[in-house]
Amino acid sequence: MEHKNRQKHLVIFQPSGRRGHIDEGETILEASQEMGVDLESVCGGRATCGKCKVRIGEGSLKKYRIDSRREHLSPIEDTEKKFVTKHQELDGYRLACAARIYGDVVVFVPEESRTAKQIVCKPATKRAFDLKPAVRKCYVELAPATLDNPAADWERLQAELTKRFGLRNLTIDYQVLLSLQEAIRRGDWKITASVWMDREVIKAEPRFRERGYGVAVDIGTTTVAAYLCDLTTGEVVATESAMNPQVLYGEDVMSRISYAMENKKGLKTLNRVIVKQLNQLVREAAVQAGIKLGDILDMTVVGNTCMHHLFVGINPEYLGRAPFSPSLHHSLDVKARDLGLNIAEGAYVHALPIEAGFVGADNVGVLIAEEPYKQDKMLLIIDIGTNGELVLGNQDKLICSSCATGPAFEGANIKYGTRAAPGAIEKVEIDPDSKEVRLKVIGKTGWHTSLDTPGANGICGSGIFDAIAQMFLAGILQKSGRFNLDLKTPRLRTTEGQLEFVIAWANQTSIGHDITVSQADVRAVQLAKASMYAGVKLMVHRLGVKKLDKVILAGAFGSYIDKKSAMIIGLFPDCALENVYAVGNAAGDGARIALLNVDKRKEANEVARKVQYIELTTDADFERQFVQAMHFPHMEDGFPHLKQLLG
Amino acid sequence: MEHKNRQKHLVIFQPSGRRGHIDEGETILEASQEMGVDLESVCGGRATCGKCKVRIGEGSLKKYRIDSRREHLSPIEDTEKKFVTKHQELDGYRLACAARIYGDVVVFVPEESRTAKQIVCKPATKRAFDLKPAVRKCYVELAPATLDNPAADWERLQAELTKRFGLRNLTIDYQVLLSLQEAIRRGDWKITASVWMDREVIKAEPRFRERGYGVAVDIGTTTVAAYLCDLTTGEVVATESAMNPQVLYGEDVMSRISYAMENKKGLKTLNRVIVKQLNQLVREAAVQAGIKLGDILDMTVVGNTCMHHLFVGINPEYLGRAPFSPSLHHSLDVKARDLGLNIAEGAYVHALPIEAGFVGADNVGVLIAEEPYKQDKMLLIIDIGTNGELVLGNQDKLICSSCATGPAFEGANIKYGTRAAPGAIEKVEIDPDSKEVRLKVIGKTGWHTSLDTPGANGICGSGIFDAIAQMFLAGILQKSGRFNLDLKTPRLRTTEGQLEFVIAWANQTSIGHDITVSQADVRAVQLAKASMYAGVKLMVHRLGVKKLDKVILAGAFGSYIDKKSAMIIGLFPDCALENVYAVGNAAGDGARIALLNVDKRKEANEVARKVQYIELTTDADFERQFVQAMHFPHMEDGFPHLKQLLG
Repeated sequence: MEHKNRQKHLVIFQPSGRRGHIDEGETILEASQEMGVDLESVCGGRATCGKCKVRIGEGSLKKYRIDSRREHLSPIEDTEKKFVTKHQELDGYRLACAARIYGDVVVFVPEESRTAKQIVCKPATKRAFDLKPAVRKCYVELAPATLDNPAADWERLQAELTKRFGLRNLTIDYQVLLSLQEAIRRGDWKITASVWMDREVIKAEPRFRERGYGVAVDIGTTTVAAYLCDLTTGEVVATESAMNPQVLYGEDVMSRISYAMENKKGLKTLNRVIVKQLNQLVREAAVQAGIKLGDILDMTVVGNTCMHHLFVGINPEYLGRAPFSPSLHHSLDVKARDLGLNIAEGAYVHALPIEAGFVGADNVGVLIAEEPYKQDKMLLIIDIGTNGELVLGNQDKLICSSCATGPAFEGANIKYGTRAAPGAIEKVEIDPDSKEVRLKVIGKTGWHTSLDTPGANGICGSGIFDAIAQMFLAGILQKSGRFNLDLKTPRLRTTEGQLEFVIAWANQTSIGHDITVSQADVRAVQLAKASMYAGVKLMVHRLGVKKLDKVILAGAFGSYIDKKSAMIIGLFPDCALENVYAVGNAAGDGARIALLNVDKRKEANEVARKVQYIELTTDADFERQFVQAMHFPHMEDGFPHLKQLLG
Repeated sequence: MEHKNRQKHLVIFQPSGRRGHIDEGETILEASQEMGVDLESVCGGRATCGKCKVRIGEGSLKKYRIDSRREHLSPIEDTEKKFVTKHQELDGYRLACAARIYGDVVVFVPEESRTAKQIVCKPATKRAFDLKPAVRKCYVELAPATLDNPAADWERLQAELTKRFGLRNLTIDYQVLLSLQEAIRRGDWKITASVWMDREVIKAEPRFRERGYGVAVDIGTTTVAAYLCDLTTGEVVATESAMNPQVLYGEDVMSRISYAMENKKGLKTLNRVIVKQLNQLVREAAVQAGIKLGDILDMTVVGNTCMHHLFVGINPEYLGRAPFSPSLHHSLDVKARDLGLNIAEGAYVHALPIEAGFVGADNVGVLIAEEPYKQDKMLLIIDIGTNGELVLGNQDKLICSSCATGPAFEGANIKYGTRAAPGAIEKVEIDPDSKEVRLKVIGKTGWHTSLDTPGANGICGSGIFDAIAQMFLAGILQKSGRFNLDLKTPRLRTTEGQLEFVIAWANQTSIGHDITVSQADVRAVQLAKASMYAGVKLMVHRLGVKKLDKVILAGAFGSYIDKKSAMIIGLFPDCALENVYAVGNAAGDGARIALLNVDKRKEANEVARKVQYIELTTDADFERQFVQAMHFPHMEDGFPHLKQLLG
C-alpha cells in the first residue's frame, strides 16, 4: 500500500524494542508485519480470531522517550469487544488488527499473542523453547467464484494465503486437493488451511478452525510411548504407552534383525505390527483428549536406528553386519498415509535423524532436549534402554557410543519385571537391620510395607535399580553380586533351585505370588550396568576427560529412577550427586520438542552430523573394564561422593 | 580446484562461440562446465558413457584467431577408443572427459553430444524444441562403506550426485529409499539414479543404465491415446489408442458430470475405468517397445477440464454449473502410484494446466505445440473433438472458447462411425457425374472402389468430413443438408424410414453390411460444424479481426482431415487454403512436447494464465449465427477461396 502524503507516527513494540515510523491509519498488526515483530494472527487481520491482543502504554514514557496515548488509536470497535474484556479494556488492551494508528504509541505484545510462545518442557531440567510447530493454521475468506471471475478454487486460496500470510510457492497435498472444493463451499468461501513448513497445504477445513494437534512418538525396543500435543499451546493433552509388539519376534535389536533376515516376510511383519501399535496408541490418545484423528496434523518419531528402519520399512540387515551402515542419516519427512498411519490425510511424519548404526534418532532426541553442544561443562548422558546409548562431551566435541544392555532396565528378562504402568513397584527401601522392605506402587499414593502392597503386579525399571542398590547396602547382596548366605531372614530363600529375595509378599499383590528378585535377575542387572560403566570409562579415556561435571540419566522408565541407586549399583563413575540428573524419557522429550519447534529439527540434523560415533566393543580394553564393572559399585574405582553411604 | 601457477590456454567452443582461458591440464568437459557450454555427460566424467564426444579443430583457424592443434591435448586413451571409431579418431573426435588441455583448441560440440538436443516433433508443422526431459539419469560410483567411514547409503549417494552433477538439496522418493541399499549393493556400489526436476531421486538402479522412457497421454472424451517416448532421443517408440471407457457412462462431458453427481460411486467409477484403460494402453505400448513398465520414468497428461478432473479424481460437479469453475488451473505433479498408475514406482505424473471450466489441458497442449503467443499473424486454432475448442489471437492477445460439438467428428453418434483405427474409411471421393465412390481404408494402401473395400468396418472422423463435403459437391446433399430426392442412384435409399447414401457396399466390408451416411448423420455433422462456425464468428467479432492469416485444424482423428473438406462443409470462415494446416492431434503433441521439455511446462502455465476465456453460448447473437451456419458451407458468408470448387 502507498501512503505518500500521510503523516507518520513513532511506534515502539515491547518487549522486542523494535521502533519505527508508521503511516497514519495503518493497523498495529500491519505495523508489526512491516517491522518484523512477532505477533500472532490466525485470521489474517479480520478481527475474528482474537489472537493479536496487545496492550498500549499510557502517558509520557520517559524510558522510551515517547508520549504514548491510548487515544492515539482509533476508538475500540464492537468486534474487538468480543475478545477484549471490560477489565482488559481499562488496562489498555486492543486487537492489533483493529486498532489504527493516529499518534505515537508503545505497544506491549504479551506472551500469549506471540506466534513463538515459550514452552517449558520439564521444569526440573529447565528445558525451554519457542512454540514454532511445522504446521500453521491460516484462516482466509475467499471471494466466491462468479461468471466474471471463475478462477479455480486452488488458485483463489493460494492467492489469499499469499496476500494474508505472505506464503509463496505453496503446493497442496493431492488428497486435500480432491476435497478442496467441498470444503470451500461448505464453509461458504471461508476456509482454514493447515500449512506445513510454509510449503504445502495439508488440510482444508470449512470456516474458522483454530485447534490443531500433533503427536510425538518414541519407539523403544521394548516400550512405545506417544505424546499427543496441542500445537497451539504446546501442552501434552494425552500420553499413551504400550509394549513394542515386535518383542514377540525378538527381544533385542540383533534378534529383530535376524528375524527380518531369516523370514521371507519378516521385515513386513515387524513393520506392520509397530505401525498397528502406533495407530492404536494414537487412537487411544485421541479418545482420551476428545479429538478426532483428522485433527492430528503432524507427527515426530524417535527410536534407535533399527526401530527407525523397521518403522520406516527399511531392511535392517546391514545394521547387523560390519560396517553397520544405516540406510540414511538425515531426518525424513514421509506422508503419514504412505506409512499406513491414520492421522490427518495430508499430514507428514518427521523421523528424526540418525547418528550411526547403533546410535539412532532416539539419542538425537536426547541431544536436542539436553543440548550438550551448547554447554561448556563436561557432560555425560546415559540413555538407558534395551540398547544403552552414551554421549560424552560439550560444545567443543561430542562423542557417542552404544552398548547392548539388554531389556533388564526396562523390567523385561527379570522374573517379576514389568513395564512402568499402574501396579508396578517403582521405589524400594530396605531397612539395613531388619531387612524389612518398604515400597511405592505406580497408581497408589505413599509408601507401603511389603505385606501391604495393594495390587502390585511386578517391578519396573526404577524399582529394580532401587531393589538391587538397597539389597547391596543392606548386606543382602555382596560386592560380587552373590547373595549373602549368612543372612537369617525368611525373605532370602531358594525357589526352583535358585536363590531369591522377597520384595513383596503374595497376600496383597494382584498376581497371587510373592514378588522377588532372583540371583538371575541380579546377574542380568550386573551385565547391563557393567556394559554401561565400561563404555563410559573407555569414552572418558578417549576424550581425555579428568572428571564429569554433570551426568544425565535418561530412559523410558515411566517414573524417574533414583540417581543415588544408579550410582550405588555402579552405572557410571563418581560424580557429585547434585550434578546428577534423572530426566526420564529424554528421547521422548526430544520428539516432543521437535514436534513443537521446527528450528530444533534443523538443529537435530546438525548435531547428528557433528557427534562422532566411537565403536567400543572392539576396544582391546573393553573386556577388562567390563569384568571390573561387574562388581557393586565397581571392583577398583572409588566413589568419594558415596563415601557416607557405602561406609 | 586451484591451479595457481598453471599456464592458461584459449579454448573456443562451437557452435556456441563461447571462449575462455582454461588452466593447463583440465579436461575439455571441465572447461565446458566452467564456461557453461551444454555438453552431455551421463557418467559424470568417468569415460564410461561415451556421451561427451567432441571434435577438435585442426590448424590456424583464422576465423577464430586461434591455432588449434589436436596435439594440444593429452594423447587419446584406450578407454576413449571404446567409443571413438578409428575413422572418428582421424577426424579429430575425442571424449571431452578424457582429453586434457595443453594448448589452444577449438572444440566442436556435435548435436548428439548436447544435453539439449533439438527434436523435430512433426516435420509438417516444423515444431522444433530442445530435448530437456524432467527426468535425468545420473551414474555414480560410490566408495563402499567401511568401519572408518560407515556413512549412510543415501548421504553417500547424495554427496556423489552433488559432486558429479552439481545437484543440491536432493530428496529421495520414499519407496525408492526403501530399496536403495539393495540397489547399491547389487551394483557393487555403482548406481544410476534417475533424478526428477533436479530435485528428487525417483529411481535407483544397479550399475550404468542409460535408457529411460516417458509416456504422453491425451484423454479425449471419446478416445484416449498414449505415446511412449525414449527420453534419451525424444523418439516415439510406441503409440496406442483406445475408446475412452467412460463413454459407457455418458457420451459427452455434461452427461459424465451428471453421472458423477447422480451416482453415489459415480466419480469413483469414472476415475477407475480411465485409470484402468491408461494402465492397459501403457502396458501395451511397453510390450510393443520391448521395455519394462518400471523403465517409464515420467508421464504427462492432457485432456479437457472434465477429463482432467475425472482422471485426477476431482468431483466435476462444479464444472457443470455456473460459474463453471475448475478446482485448479495450475499444472499438477502427482506420484503415479497415488493415481493408481503402474509405471516406475517413484515416477510423477504431470497434468498440464487448465484454461477454464470448458477449455482444458488439451487446449494448453495445442497452444504449446502451435505457439500462437509467439506469432504476429492472426491465428485461429480449431481443436475438433467431442468438445470443440477455439483459440483466436497472436502474441498481443489470445482468447479461447469452447463449443459442444458432440462426438460426431470422432465417428461416434454416426450410424457407421468408428474410431480412427485399421478398417476405418478415412478418405472419400465421389464422382459428381456417376456418383461413384472411391475411398481409402486405414491399414490398406491406395484408393479402393466402393465394391472393393477390403475389411472396412466404418467411417472415422476424417472420412465423415470427406463424405459430407463430397456429397455436397456432387449434389447429393443440398445446401440445407437435406438429400437431393431428384437423384437417381441405388446408393440413395430409405432404410428403416430414413434416407441414407451408400458409401461402401457390403460385399467386402468386414461387418457384412453396406456402410452408409444417413440423414441423421448429416444432421449431427451440421449441428457440430454450425456450433464451431458460430463460435469462430463471435470470437472474430470480439477481437475485431478483419481476416484470418492462418487456420490450424487439430483433432485426434488418427489420420489428418482434409482441410478442403473442412472448409467445404463450413467449419470455419474463408481463408487461403495454403494458410490452412491440418495438424492432427496437436493436444497429444503438446503432451509429448511437455514430456520431453520441462521449459515447455513452465510456458504452458504461463499461457494458460494469459489466454482469456470467452463464454459464447450466452452471447445474444449466438443463436442467429448458429442457424445461419447450419447450411453448407454457410447461409450468407462467402468463400472466395472455394469459388472454383463451389462454382
